[in-house]
Amino acid sequence: MDRQSVIAIVGSGAVGGYYGARLAQHGCNVHFLLRGDYEAVRQNGWVVRSKHGDFQLPAGSCNVYDNPAKMPAADLVVVALKATANDQYQSLIGPLVKEDTTILTLQNGLGNEERLAELFGADRVMGGLAFVCINRIGPGIIHHMDYGLVQLGEYSRPPGERLRSLAELWLSCNIKCIALQSLRRGRWEKLLWNIPFNGLSAVMDMTTDKLVAEEKGTALVRRIMDEVSAIALTQGVTLDEAMIEDKISSTRTMGAYRTSMHIDRTSNRAMEVEAILGNPLKVAESVGVKVPCLRMLYEQAKAIDASRAIGERER
Amino acid sequence: MDRQSVIAIVGSGAVGGYYGARLAQHGCNVHFLLRGDYEAVRQNGWVVRSKHGDFQLPAGSCNVYDNPAKMPAADLVVVALKATANDQYQSLIGPLVKEDTTILTLQNGLGNEERLAELFGADRVMGGLAFVCINRIGPGIIHHMDYGLVQLGEYSRPPGERLRSLAELWLSCNIKCIALQSLRRGRWEKLLWNIPFNGLSAVMDMTTDKLVAEEKGTALVRRIMDEVSAIALTQGVTLDEAMIEDKISSTRTMGAYRTSMHIDRTSNRAMEVEAILGNPLKVAESVGVKVPCLRMLYEQAKAIDASRAIGERER
Repeated sequence: MDRQSVIAIVGSGAVGGYYGARLAQHGCNVHFLLRGDYEAVRQNGWVVRSKHGDFQLPAGSCNVYDNPAKMPAADLVVVALKATANDQYQSLIGPLVKEDTTILTLQNGLGNEERLAELFGADRVMGGLAFVCINRIGPGIIHHMDYGLVQLGEYSRPPGERLRSLAELWLSCNIKCIALQSLRRGRWEKLLWNIPFNGLSAVMDMTTDKLVAEEKGTALVRRIMDEVSAIALTQGVTLDEAMIEDKISSTRTMGAYRTSMHIDRTSNRAMEVEAILGNPLKVAESVGVKVPCLRMLYEQAKAIDASRAIGERER
Repeated sequence: MDRQSVIAIVGSGAVGGYYGARLAQHGCNVHFLLRGDYEAVRQNGWVVRSKHGDFQLPAGSCNVYDNPAKMPAADLVVVALKATANDQYQSLIGPLVKEDTTILTLQNGLGNEERLAELFGADRVMGGLAFVCINRIGPGIIHHMDYGLVQLGEYSRPPGERLRSLAELWLSCNIKCIALQSLRRGRWEKLLWNIPFNGLSAVMDMTTDKLVAEEKGTALVRRIMDEVSAIALTQGVTLDEAMIEDKISSTRTMGAYRTSMHIDRTSNRAMEVEAILGNPLKVAESVGVKVPCLRMLYEQAKAIDASRAIGERER
């Protein structure tokens, strides 16, 4: 993987836009597939306001597309779709795939690599966990507030030469990244926080600080984390008590944080319910682990999402 | 019990104000204990806008008090406090009680009669379930929109002469009421609706129609109702499947209904969490019935209530 490699960014919201723009800024051969912001970026390029320094990619220097059929086949496809759009994997990614294409998903939750592996073959698939505080503040305008680390892992394999060369390229483009020995472990460790905090904050319409401000909310967060760690254990991943306490106490210091599902709910957009809650629940059910809180959280989130969808149909 | 009997209304919000004003309108000897609306009612009396015809009780004809020590001992104390104020039973009701005083609580949820019985003796205690659509729309101004039935029962006893004479008096004052053979059964039947719909609507910030608009929300409501009916069974009360289906389908026809807990949450007021969720949960725990959904609902509601209380202290 080098600066000549064709990199396709599929789903250019805040995450796809930010990482793609960083790669392009440092001379990579990046091709953006956009939907809503296509016209804005085609006309004005990308505008990134970053804590590491603002930069722009002028319109002429951006390769932007509204249709994957018009794009070149890619050496690397970076998937940054919202997980609610995963039913479009085939139509959006299929046209970009050639024999040796690598597919890297930076999406939230569980089940993304699995589905990509089913569709395009497990060997192509890599996963990345993006720890970044980022917002799309207007069409083609991204605000990078903090962090930026990407934990990279191979799907169902230890990291090898491919991952090393990808990490090297990204590091040379000012993207901090590290290799995960086990992507699966990384996913479950992130879920340990995402399931209770994304779930409860969205369902209860509360910022994360309030969920752990007092005893009852904290007890509930802890019980959900216990359920997540019970599922993870069946997947060969140990998430211990100390880790749970760390996640709770660090959340207390984060201030009034709004999770992605919470923002989606209050913005009346589809929430990533299946990726963050539903797929972990399916794993629990398939191995017979009892997770009554996760199950209720999932049903609460589904009810909210379904009532939003009904509202959309009625409009 | 007759028109000369001294009737004290303790907690004169919408429910206490409405029923007290009805009794006074028909010549009963009613004494109102008020807090927030004391000045307004002292100066302007009660204003009731009712579907049965508007009426007023002029200032001069209302006996209003801001302190129970100034009130006459009562033949009947009608308790219409919000259940979150039950720690004030002794100070508010104590001064009104003489040897043969009857105490009737019209409050929501579980545990009110039990606590009154502990403090003042079980023989005095009666309970009433008010099915009424009513709002306080301004200081001393009540809007009675619909219904009005009160189901009256004796605490831990079948109905007798006392209940008959009270019901007769209220009926003569245009208050529809019926006698419950078992107050306990009445309470649990009301909880069968109140626990899922008050609980979920408040915790998820959704009107009741949306909770049962689609499959997942309905499944969750049904599972909570199953838990309530399992607790009720241990209390000698059978709530069957047909009743559950009735409550769900009638809720679908009620439109965008906002429950009392939901209104309290969105108005940033204390919710009746213990009366509606916490006390039934305590019963479940004391008899060893597993109620994971009720437990989670309770903790969610407590977390919301506690974060509001923290906000209040910080202001």
